[in-house]
Amino acid sequence: MKIQVVKNVLDANDRIAQENRALFDAKGIYVINLMSAPGAGKTTLVEKTILALKDDYRIAVIEGDIQDTYDADRVAALGIPAVQINTGGGCHLDGNMIREALSGLDLDAIDLLIVENVGNLVCPAEFKVGENAKVMLLSTPEGADKPAKYPLMFQESTVLLINKIDLMPYVDFDRDKALRDARAINQDLTIFEVSCRTGDGLGQWFAWLRGRIEAHKRP
Amino acid sequence: MKIQVVKNVLDANDRIAQENRALFDAKGIYVINLMSAPGAGKTTLVEKTILALKDDYRIAVIEGDIQDTYDADRVAALGIPAVQINTGGGCHLDGNMIREALSGLDLDAIDLLIVENVGNLVCPAEFKVGENAKVMLLSTPEGADKPAKYPLMFQESTVLLINKIDLMPYVDFDRDKALRDARAINQDLTIFEVSCRTGDGLGQWFAWLRGRIEAHKRP
Repeated sequence: MKIQVVKNVLDANDRIAQENRALFDAKGIYVINLMSAPGAGKTTLVEKTILALKDDYRIAVIEGDIQDTYDADRVAALGIPAVQINTGGGCHLDGNMIREALSGLDLDAIDLLIVENVGNLVCPAEFKVGENAKVMLLSTPEGADKPAKYPLMFQESTVLLINKIDLMPYVDFDRDKALRDARAINQDLTIFEVSCRTGDGLGQWFAWLRGRIEAHKRP
Repeated sequence: MKIQVVKNVLDANDRIAQENRALFDAKGIYVINLMSAPGAGKTTLVEKTILALKDDYRIAVIEGDIQDTYDADRVAALGIPAVQINTGGGCHLDGNMIREALSGLDLDAIDLLIVENVGNLVCPAEFKVGENAKVMLLSTPEGADKPAKYPLMFQESTVLLINKIDLMPYVDFDRDKALRDARAINQDLTIFEVSCRTGDGLGQWFAWLRGRIEAHKRP
């Protein structure tokens, strides 16, 4: 009985996410759903990505947090449209929250929409929001056992950014194990090793994202 | 309607947690529910705590993970009884899971039971398992904005361990903000600043825990 309820919730969410996706496609908007554990560097990645791409593309951001508007404030400070979703205790974003948030954005003036999910390696992976790609961060201080311990997010993601490589000399991060385990779960995973703090390695991420935005533009 | 369902789930959990707690009290077992984001250092804290206290107290551990038995294996390697709960996708432990796990432990031979929850700063804070104290870790690479962004866990916890202080020179962690915001949420919070890796600061944690175990023993 419990399983049936959960399945119905996920089915209903998938339908709403598909409707969101159809709307984004019609408008030529490329959408990423950004996920990670708390403090892995999502908002810093959003900031650096905006600074690198904002002269060439029209960017908007939806920030998901349990409460507060810190992250949306950080994005808005860069002159980018930002909508804050407060889940009020909820541990993930879902399709309906994104649909509601879209009323705060001009969809005819967006090339790239970044959805920054709630910091959580578990539940966000189960709920589509209408994205083209799920992008996840794993930061080196979290440890190399995370792919094996939280496999669904690695399985569902298109891109894995291994972040905080500047901390590698100071933490016990087994890079080879992390890469091997992540690829064992998802052989199609595109992996970039970066430091959002120093900017190291971000060029490849920007290039990947530019390619996807260009390919997705309406002719 | 949805809110009612959630409330019933939490009420039912509270009842089971109370039953667990009554059983632990009758047996003179002190129980901590250990929570944090993924990779904050929970299992390393468990290992160091076992090594420091196992000559004086009988310790057992319940490990909560989505899948796998890595953490229980690490604990069992220290010669300590360990039961692994695999939540199969679930993002937190609850009272019923703990009740089921107790069949794998000899409750007449335990002074301290450590429950290591699933790595998640959100949902575990809502579900009691029968513990005497919730103990949480915040690691410095996660950033000082975490109390403000994930307040419930800070509110519910008796002890906050700020971990990975050895990384302070390499990360942008505003210690004063973290302490101030955590205390603003929970003025009774006992805070220890530690490095589970180097052992720095752990003596105070061990002393606190010894005091609680002694106070809780059956006369």
